[in-house]
Amino acid sequence: MRFLGKQYMVELKGCNAKLLDDPEFIGTAMREAALKANATIVQQFFHQFSPFGVSGTIVIAESHINIHTWPEHAYAAIDMFTCSDTLIAENAIEYLKEALEAKECTTSMMNRGQID
Amino acid sequence: MRFLGKQYMVELKGCNAKLLDDPEFIGTAMREAALKANATIVQQFFHQFSPFGVSGTIVIAESHINIHTWPEHAYAAIDMFTCSDTLIAENAIEYLKEALEAKECTTSMMNRGQID
Repeated sequence: MRFLGKQYMVELKGCNAKLLDDPEFIGTAMREAALKANATIVQQFFHQFSPFGVSGTIVIAESHINIHTWPEHAYAAIDMFTCSDTLIAENAIEYLKEALEAKECTTSMMNRGQID
Repeated sequence: MRFLGKQYMVELKGCNAKLLDDPEFIGTAMREAALKANATIVQQFFHQFSPFGVSGTIVIAESHINIHTWPEHAYAAIDMFTCSDTLIAENAIEYLKEALEAKECTTSMMNRGQID
């Protein structure tokens, strides 16, 4: 079986709530995570919600990395989609876990686009 | 059990390859899909890859909708993350299936961020 892409769903729990509510910090951490994964950044946005939380997207040449944070639950949902064999998703995940000071990290991976 | 969000992974196969390679069409279809799902568009970005394919992201107040297309395989991967009970993901999925003229559509849903 051959697939066109892989999607990683990462649950970060027990994070530093203050960091999760800081769009500048989240932006810096996401860009750094993308670089650590060998990704090429094409475009990015970060948006702060009222009263809490940040959503961020980085479109990368290899697909995308998204984050949604819930500071009130010390939780961040990350999802990373890649169609490249050179992107090392684990590096980005490990970096974000440390940057957001997560106490718990679980990752699921789903293959996307079966072509044979 | 209570969760903070839901993530829908949609596989559209047998699509119209010409539409999948047209970033303007993809942008219009994605915005329309967001509106049909009752989503509020916050930010959006569409990017055409060389030689083929489009990546698109719509940040919505309810989280995000992404698309990646492979015209050469008549395939599009859509993923929609929502933290809202008012977003009707099925409406967006049904609309995109028709708009991209997909012959086959399979959807997986994953709960994200268990809080109790």
